[in-house]
Amino acid sequence: MKYTKLITSAAFFIMLTTTLAHAKTYILTDTEQNIDLGAWKVSGPNYSIEQRVLRGGKQEGTKVITLTSDHGLTIALSPTRGMGLLYAKGQGIHLGWSSPVKEIVNPSYIQLDSRNGLGWLDGFNEMMVRCGYEWTGHPVVADGQIYSLHGKAQNTPASYVAIHIDDKAPYAIHIKGLIKESTFKKSDLQTMTELVYVPGESTFKIHDVLTNHADYPHDYQIIYHSNFSQPILEDGAKFIAPVSEVSPFNDYAIKGLETWSKYLGPTKNFDEMVFNLKPIADAQGNTLAALINKAGDKGVSIAFNTAQLPVLTLWKNTDTLKQGYVTGIEPGTSYAYPVTIERAQNRVKQIQPNQSIDFELTYSLLSSAQQVKATEQRIAQIQGNHKINQLKTPIAKE
Amino acid sequence: MKYTKLITSAAFFIMLTTTLAHAKTYILTDTEQNIDLGAWKVSGPNYSIEQRVLRGGKQEGTKVITLTSDHGLTIALSPTRGMGLLYAKGQGIHLGWSSPVKEIVNPSYIQLDSRNGLGWLDGFNEMMVRCGYEWTGHPVVADGQIYSLHGKAQNTPASYVAIHIDDKAPYAIHIKGLIKESTFKKSDLQTMTELVYVPGESTFKIHDVLTNHADYPHDYQIIYHSNFSQPILEDGAKFIAPVSEVSPFNDYAIKGLETWSKYLGPTKNFDEMVFNLKPIADAQGNTLAALINKAGDKGVSIAFNTAQLPVLTLWKNTDTLKQGYVTGIEPGTSYAYPVTIERAQNRVKQIQPNQSIDFELTYSLLSSAQQVKATEQRIAQIQGNHKINQLKTPIAKE
Amino acid sequence: MKYTKLITSAAFFIMLTTTLAHAKTYILTDTEQNIDLGAWKVSGPNYSIEQRVLRGGKQEGTKVITLTSDHGLTIALSPTRGMGLLYAKGQGIHLGWSSPVKEIVNPSYIQLDSRNGLGWLDGFNEMMVRCGYEWTGHPVVADGQIYSLHGKAQNTPASYVAIHIDDKAPYAIHIKGLIKESTFKKSDLQTMTELVYVPGESTFKIHDVLTNHADYPHDYQIIYHSNFSQPILEDGAKFIAPVSEVSPFNDYAIKGLETWSKYLGPTKNFDEMVFNLKPIADAQGNTLAALINKAGDKGVSIAFNTAQLPVLTLWKNTDTLKQGYVTGIEPGTSYAYPVTIERAQNRVKQIQPNQSIDFELTYSLLSSAQQVKATEQRIAQIQGNHKINQLKTPIAKE
Repeated sequence: MKYTKLITSAAFFIMLTTTLAHAKTYILTDTEQNIDLGAWKVSGPNYSIEQRVLRGGKQEGTKVITLTSDHGLTIALSPTRGMGLLYAKGQGIHLGWSSPVKEIVNPSYIQLDSRNGLGWLDGFNEMMVRCGYEWTGHPVVADGQIYSLHGKAQNTPASYVAIHIDDKAPYAIHIKGLIKESTFKKSDLQTMTELVYVPGESTFKIHDVLTNHADYPHDYQIIYHSNFSQPILEDGAKFIAPVSEVSPFNDYAIKGLETWSKYLGPTKNFDEMVFNLKPIADAQGNTLAALINKAGDKGVSIAFNTAQLPVLTLWKNTDTLKQGYVTGIEPGTSYAYPVTIERAQNRVKQIQPNQSIDFELTYSLLSSAQQVKATEQRIAQIQGNHKINQLKTPIAKE
Repeated sequence: MKYTKLITSAAFFIMLTTTLAHAKTYILTDTEQNIDLGAWKVSGPNYSIEQRVLRGGKQEGTKVITLTSDHGLTIALSPTRGMGLLYAKGQGIHLGWSSPVKEIVNPSYIQLDSRNGLGWLDGFNEMMVRCGYEWTGHPVVADGQIYSLHGKAQNTPASYVAIHIDDKAPYAIHIKGLIKESTFKKSDLQTMTELVYVPGESTFKIHDVLTNHADYPHDYQIIYHSNFSQPILEDGAKFIAPVSEVSPFNDYAIKGLETWSKYLGPTKNFDEMVFNLKPIADAQGNTLAALINKAGDKGVSIAFNTAQLPVLTLWKNTDTLKQGYVTGIEPGTSYAYPVTIERAQNRVKQIQPNQSIDFELTYSLLSSAQQVKATEQRIAQIQGNHKINQLKTPIAKE
Repeated sequence: MKYTKLITSAAFFIMLTTTLAHAKTYILTDTEQNIDLGAWKVSGPNYSIEQRVLRGGKQEGTKVITLTSDHGLTIALSPTRGMGLLYAKGQGIHLGWSSPVKEIVNPSYIQLDSRNGLGWLDGFNEMMVRCGYEWTGHPVVADGQIYSLHGKAQNTPASYVAIHIDDKAPYAIHIKGLIKESTFKKSDLQTMTELVYVPGESTFKIHDVLTNHADYPHDYQIIYHSNFSQPILEDGAKFIAPVSEVSPFNDYAIKGLETWSKYLGPTKNFDEMVFNLKPIADAQGNTLAALINKAGDKGVSIAFNTAQLPVLTLWKNTDTLKQGYVTGIEPGTSYAYPVTIERAQNRVKQIQPNQSIDFELTYSLLSSAQQVKATEQRIAQIQGNHKINQLKTPIAKE
């Protein structure tokens, strides 16, 4: 009894919740009910989930949820930064990268419009960033307004965060977070993001549902900006995916067209080369893309559906380690051109009032030659006899 | 004694304060003395006042004060959002509206200049917003700078918040909050806002005092953007006020000129129609404007003085419920045109060094046909034989 | 034992630290280790150091460290505002000034780009502000981007804050803070700032080390914007420094060229006059500049090295007290012109990858005619027979 005296009410609430045998949903944040647990932890037989609130510098107040499983993956995400995935790791392999931005920056310290729409770069260091949904792509001034780089979702703190643990095998863990892009007169796009993970596995799933809560149709764009580095990315690493067309994003990328699917090691002055890809899918629309290391025994794949995410951007940023040695595999509705170009080329889609649209991606960590080979075979199978059309020049000029 | 062990120092301080018989002023925030109580509550015989600190999403850290009275009104305001009134309710009538923006957004997450000066829309959901005081109106780029929509006051956290309860009948409650627009070289306009409410009544008063703390005169503008919806606003509801002139704000409003004082129900694609009104007042400058429901048994009125607030904007935003079905009754020194137009048309006023200017508005909830009728009679009395001059075209073009 | 029950873990940690005889480094903030002590205090035989977290208004969450010594100086700085010095005081003399901005504004409430790049003015009230390092000077739009007034460092919360107390005489206190200007693709300039103070003395030292953590060279600029007012600044006060050239910053300053080193009392409509100075140094590059009161018995001097800080800006803002009666003595690498002009005139320097550059300044409070005289003699000695070249017109036009 005397020990309990010092327990705060929040901690007490958590204890209550976790000791109830069948209660398996934990609401960490709910702005409508003014629930916000802050630091929080729960454990199961083979996993633990912890929320921390970071302090200091520009990460003051940023929340991070870390899901740890005994023989599987550790996955970290940040509710404060649009439920973006910071990293996933397991089997000695780290998925993610090292940005010059080390802090998990609270959006309260970010001005997206700064540097003529590049403010997003002040916080960019995640393994997976949602670029959307009101708009995405490189910044552009149109109608007198800056459409800032890659939209607002990633710099929007989640309005609702909940963790659900299934009570039936395989006891999947669901981490949900609601990102609201709600602006009077402008948009009411709300995305219920979801990370699904079964403890012990080397695969996790993203299942996002974008809903238009407004009474009017609204344009939307999304790019799942998924970023990887060492130990998979290295000199001789390769990108594989079934595609029908590849084109250089801009003039600079023309120089790298011949070797578009091969990677260099950290290379000074490389900067970035970007390629637009048209993925091929199976009859159900399913496809995948992968990054494979040189030896062919480590990799990461992203499975997605081209009905949901019809295009694929490959971002090769194999500059020096300090500059950010990283490649982005980016399934999306759009390429990374400014919204004005994407609209002109008919890649900006519309969501109707009350319509919901699903986006599902499965990320798999490949930690053996066997797993890599299976992925390569699956990709070769979808590619089949389809030729890859290599466009020699960019499809658009920024 | 053992129970007190867990009482935090803040809570202890509150207990001390509230148990002293004659201490009737509570300082909730004072940046000069570094006082900030956070969560706080006080009760009286027929009222309670509570401050909560919201958490999660973009309302992280936002403070809300809610004043509840037994048979009168419940009034909520936010010190973090410029002492703006969130809503008032009583007698089964809600004053306020439902914006797609549901959270009470902390200004730390708002960039007023975004969307070419429309960042204010990311937080707009209040019943009463102070649009000013350094500038107000629609955004405009002038002198290379964005004058963002409706100025900065509403997105300025209060530097001082205090509650005073009179010790004589009628035991009025005063909630004061200081909004500083202080920028080196630019302005030192400070507004001591005040909400006055007598528990049990269906009327409350706003009494703001704008003071120019600088040694130089400064332009000022203010619009009291007061917003109402259901159950008063409905198809067949009407706006009434004694006026000498009505003009359409822009070309779109020309179409609605004939029915400018009548409302539609929620109407898709209506968007907004705005009308500029010249109010007529009695010999003392007193006048009032009201929104009345179709049956004539519910309404809300705003009394003000034309010496303080000479013009009146009527904002009819009878679009769909989700889009924001709302009308704004907006006494002000200016119409909603950009500051450049308001200046050209001589509606931008100046405040001298050390000068203080009072703004007083009385909001009354009308909950019976009798009260509505009395309001209509008062308005008719002021209108008298004065004709309403209907201008057919806007007085300015944005 | 019973008293310790209520001690929070943070406080407990502090007690542990301070009671260990030889532990003399206190880490207050470390974003990499997620350490952040918040409110904190330590005392020694002749000093105390306290960190407070301010609340309310726009100073919500701002940290302030105050170092107090028994017979010497009291110095306050803000980790949240780039380790900027708020004030120093001792011997009845206050170093600093009174800005219309009274709160210690959390950068989360500042938009640097607002007012076309003048957002910095919403928080400016310090005795010493670091204007840099990615850029500095008056705002300018170049390459489509706003280079906002005086750069970002001052509005960047420190990522690491530590206090070290030497265990040997003279037992100097070191307050270090790391300011990161880290933006993907743009910069990774990190400045480890340091304040060094020996309790009891009337002098303190700034020792900053700027390091380029990127693999590419980067431009840098820095101005140490050091601001003083009453009781030293007054009608008849003077500025002294060994200089070879003085020029008016702009046309307005031409009018004040004859009396550039003399000060007026608070003067309505004075606004500001700025002069560009070329300091002369001794053989080791050491020089100093000082502000002296009329009677010649109070003053403040800043010693610096022209190899580190080759130019000197004199900002005379002897407007009214409320407007901000203040003068800035500003050793720097650049004058206060926009970066475009500074670059064209070759004052923008480069820092190489992994290079570190030191900036050292010694601030001395002069509280007697004797100390003032010694300073004047030192300056006269460096000036020697060197003539002061007075340029009649500005060296650049904004």
